[in-house]
Amino acid sequence: MLSNIRIVLVQTFHPGNIGATARAMKTMGLTNLVLVNPRQFPDDEATRLAAGATDVLDNAQVVTQLNEALSDCVQVVGASARLRSLPLPHFEEPDDMAQAVTQNAQHAPVALVFGRERSGLTNDEIRCCTHQVSIPANPDYGILNLSQAVQILAYEVHRAWRRRDDSDYIYQQPTETTPPSREQFLHFQAHLGRLMQQSGFITQPHARTEEQLQALFTRAQPSRKELSLLRGLLSAFESHLPDR
Amino acid sequence: MLSNIRIVLVQTFHPGNIGATARAMKTMGLTNLVLVNPRQFPDDEATRLAAGATDVLDNAQVVTQLNEALSDCVQVVGASARLRSLPLPHFEEPDDMAQAVTQNAQHAPVALVFGRERSGLTNDEIRCCTHQVSIPANPDYGILNLSQAVQILAYEVHRAWRRRDDSDYIYQQPTETTPPSREQFLHFQAHLGRLMQQSGFITQPHARTEEQLQALFTRAQPSRKELSLLRGLLSAFESHLPDR
Repeated sequence: MLSNIRIVLVQTFHPGNIGATARAMKTMGLTNLVLVNPRQFPDDEATRLAAGATDVLDNAQVVTQLNEALSDCVQVVGASARLRSLPLPHFEEPDDMAQAVTQNAQHAPVALVFGRERSGLTNDEIRCCTHQVSIPANPDYGILNLSQAVQILAYEVHRAWRRRDDSDYIYQQPTETTPPSREQFLHFQAHLGRLMQQSGFITQPHARTEEQLQALFTRAQPSRKELSLLRGLLSAFESHLPDR
Repeated sequence: MLSNIRIVLVQTFHPGNIGATARAMKTMGLTNLVLVNPRQFPDDEATRLAAGATDVLDNAQVVTQLNEALSDCVQVVGASARLRSLPLPHFEEPDDMAQAVTQNAQHAPVALVFGRERSGLTNDEIRCCTHQVSIPANPDYGILNLSQAVQILAYEVHRAWRRRDDSDYIYQQPTETTPPSREQFLHFQAHLGRLMQQSGFITQPHARTEEQLQALFTRAQPSRKELSLLRGLLSAFESHLPDR
C-alpha cells in the first residue's frame, strides 16, 4: 500500500531539498518519487542530504510536465501553504488527508504534490489536483521548508497506515521485564509496612500514610528485579534499626 | 502554553541542523531553544537554514551541561530512535507524548531533548529524562535527520495544542461561498430532470438514472454561483433541443 503513495516535487530549486525529501520518504516507508522539471538533478548536494536514501533518488522518475506524473492516480492531493480560490475539497488536518489517502492507495496510486520553494503550485497545477491539504502552522510564520513539509505528510501517511488493521507494523519492544507475582508484591508491602513502624516514621496506627506510600509503589509497577532491589534496600535499612 | 515547551539539542554536530531546527520550531509556534555544547554556534550555516527564524537562534540559550537546561522542568522527554534498557516510561506514539506534554506545559516548562546526529543521547543523559519518545518509522531505515525529528515532534505538539478547548487556533477559511436555498436547488433539479427526458437521455420513466445523477449534484454541494453556472449550461443545451 505504501508503495502506491507517490511524492511529486514540482520544479524544486534546491537540490538539497530533493535529497532531504528522499530521506524523509524512506524513513516513512515511501519509495516512489517523481520530479517535475527540477532545476538541478542529479546533484551532489541531493546525494549528500539523501544520506542512506540514495536508492530513492536513483529510482526517481524525472518528467517535464506535472500531468505525466499523475495519469494513473486515483487521487491527487496538492500540498499548499495558502488556500487557493479554486474550491477543491480541502483537508485542513493532515491526518484526515492521510486516512483518505491510505484508503485509496489500497489498489491504485495516489499522489501528494509539492510545489516550488518560494511560490508553491501554480493555479494550473492545482487544477491537476483532486484535493488540497495544508499543514496547520504558526499564522505569523507558517511556511515550512519543502522537505520538512514532505516529512510531516509522509509521517501522517505512515501513521494512518500503521493504525489500519491490515498493517503489520511492529513497535520496538522495551527490554523484557517480568512483573512480580502477587505474593511477592504482598511480601514487599508487608516488609515496607513493618519498617515504616519500626523506624518510627509512623508513630500512630494511622493507615493513611502507609496507604499512600504503598499506592506509590503499586503505581510504579516494579518489575521482579526492581522489587528484589527494593527488598534489598529495605533490608539494609532494617539492619540498622533497633529490634522491637 | 507553547512558550513553556523547550527544545534542547545536545552536542549538535552540523550547524545547519540547528538552523533547520529553529525554523521547524517557529513554524509550530515554539520559540524556546537551548543548545548544550554545540560543536559550532553561532554559524553562518545555522543562520542560513533558519530562514525567517533567526530570532529563535538569537534567543537560544547555550549551556555546557544538559542539567543546566532542565532544572525548572516538570517533564523531560528524551527523543530516541532506539529504546534504551533503562525502563523509563516510553511513548511509542508521538501524539500520546504531545497530549501529555501540552497538559503539563500549562503551568511549567517541559523539555524535549534531542541527541547527537550519529549517537543520540548517552545513558547519563537519558537518566536526566522522565520519559522517552520514539518516532515510529521504517524498520529498515528509521533514523530521521535531527531537524526532521524536531519538526515532527513540534508538529505533534502543535496538533495537541490546537485540539485543546483553550487554544485559539484559527484555520484558514476558504473563500466565502454561499450555498443556494432549497428552492433554488429544487429548481435546478427540476430543470435537469426535464432536460434528461427532453434530450432523449431517459427514454423510459425510470426514476433510478435520474435519481443517481441528481444525487451526484446534491453531493457536490454547489454554491449559489456554481448552481447558476450549471443552470446556464443546461439552458445552453436546452436551446438546441427540439420543443416538446
